[in-house]
Amino acid sequence: MTIPFAPVALEHASRLLNHGPTVLVTSAHGGRRNIMAAAWSMPVEFSPPRIAIVIDKNTFTRELIAASGIFGVCLPGAALADLTFAVGSCSGRESDKFARFGIEAAKGPVLGVPLLEAGCAAWMECRLIPEAHTEDAYDTCFAEVVSAAADPAVFANGRWNFSPDNAALHTLHHLGAGNFACAGDVIRARPL
Amino acid sequence: MTIPFAPVALEHASRLLNHGPTVLVTSAHGGRRNIMAAAWSMPVEFSPPRIAIVIDKNTFTRELIAASGIFGVCLPGAALADLTFAVGSCSGRESDKFARFGIEAAKGPVLGVPLLEAGCAAWMECRLIPEAHTEDAYDTCFAEVVSAAADPAVFANGRWNFSPDNAALHTLHHLGAGNFACAGDVIRARPL
Repeated sequence: MTIPFAPVALEHASRLLNHGPTVLVTSAHGGRRNIMAAAWSMPVEFSPPRIAIVIDKNTFTRELIAASGIFGVCLPGAALADLTFAVGSCSGRESDKFARFGIEAAKGPVLGVPLLEAGCAAWMECRLIPEAHTEDAYDTCFAEVVSAAADPAVFANGRWNFSPDNAALHTLHHLGAGNFACAGDVIRARPL
Repeated sequence: MTIPFAPVALEHASRLLNHGPTVLVTSAHGGRRNIMAAAWSMPVEFSPPRIAIVIDKNTFTRELIAASGIFGVCLPGAALADLTFAVGSCSGRESDKFARFGIEAAKGPVLGVPLLEAGCAAWMECRLIPEAHTEDAYDTCFAEVVSAAADPAVFANGRWNFSPDNAALHTLHHLGAGNFACAGDVIRARPL
């Protein structure tokens, strides 16, 4: 799989989640793998880049992450709205969602987690920072981003560049029930 | 200040943050008050509605929230992009930002926190859930939403209704450096 993703400097990784996109969480352990959608994530630190993400303790993904200590976060573009909703609406415990939905995954360069590039704007490889209390009480997992990359057509030099030319890569922001707002209409604040 | 905000049922409160908007955090204690912008927040639980939000420990807002145990979360609409960036770019420790920027604030019905309605799509009143470790290690504050309301022109019956008619109320999603993506271009996922 050869797609022209380019590395994102770690000091710019927080920008990938700064505007609240819905993401795909990928995980693997012991010969099994999974992918799910997650609307609830955010950066918590610029450097080292750290994030928090809510992953229900009953999901197969939580089981794989607890076992492996690592996971991937991929940012689907608008063209993947149907897939994003689909993988967020079924469990991978019984059947492999990659096979079921024909999802091609590469291996992350640092941690080897499954990563999607086709149709995605960016990805991150994350190492779980074990926090038993918040994982239990709030299903909130903290993690450090150890590598990141993006399609330079939409994110380069630490900046998003949304334009009509790259509409298929505009990030998705789940409103609920399969409706997504797409980031694309950009305004620039003027000094007051 | 009479603006036709309507109550949001608490079981729908998570929808207000589900798509990752940048918010304004309001706080008050001992005769002082403050307002800041925060891009890093997310729901963590549907019911009771709980959220996590990153507020730097060096901010005046953290000081006021630590003292009062409560805060407000307001969702600025696109028309408030300049104000959102302005209150996110200066501290309220030395001077009252409400006065400086001519911000009118009402008092929340349950907790009495300062709340903005004009130009905003929605607000929530939040009670801090003290979590000393995550507040210290990740600047991440957990809170329970105890009341919420929205402008029914853009959010009603638990659903966002973005249309060209209510563009001024489209939520802001900070891309960095004063550039915001506005939620407005909505697509609906189809079953795969």
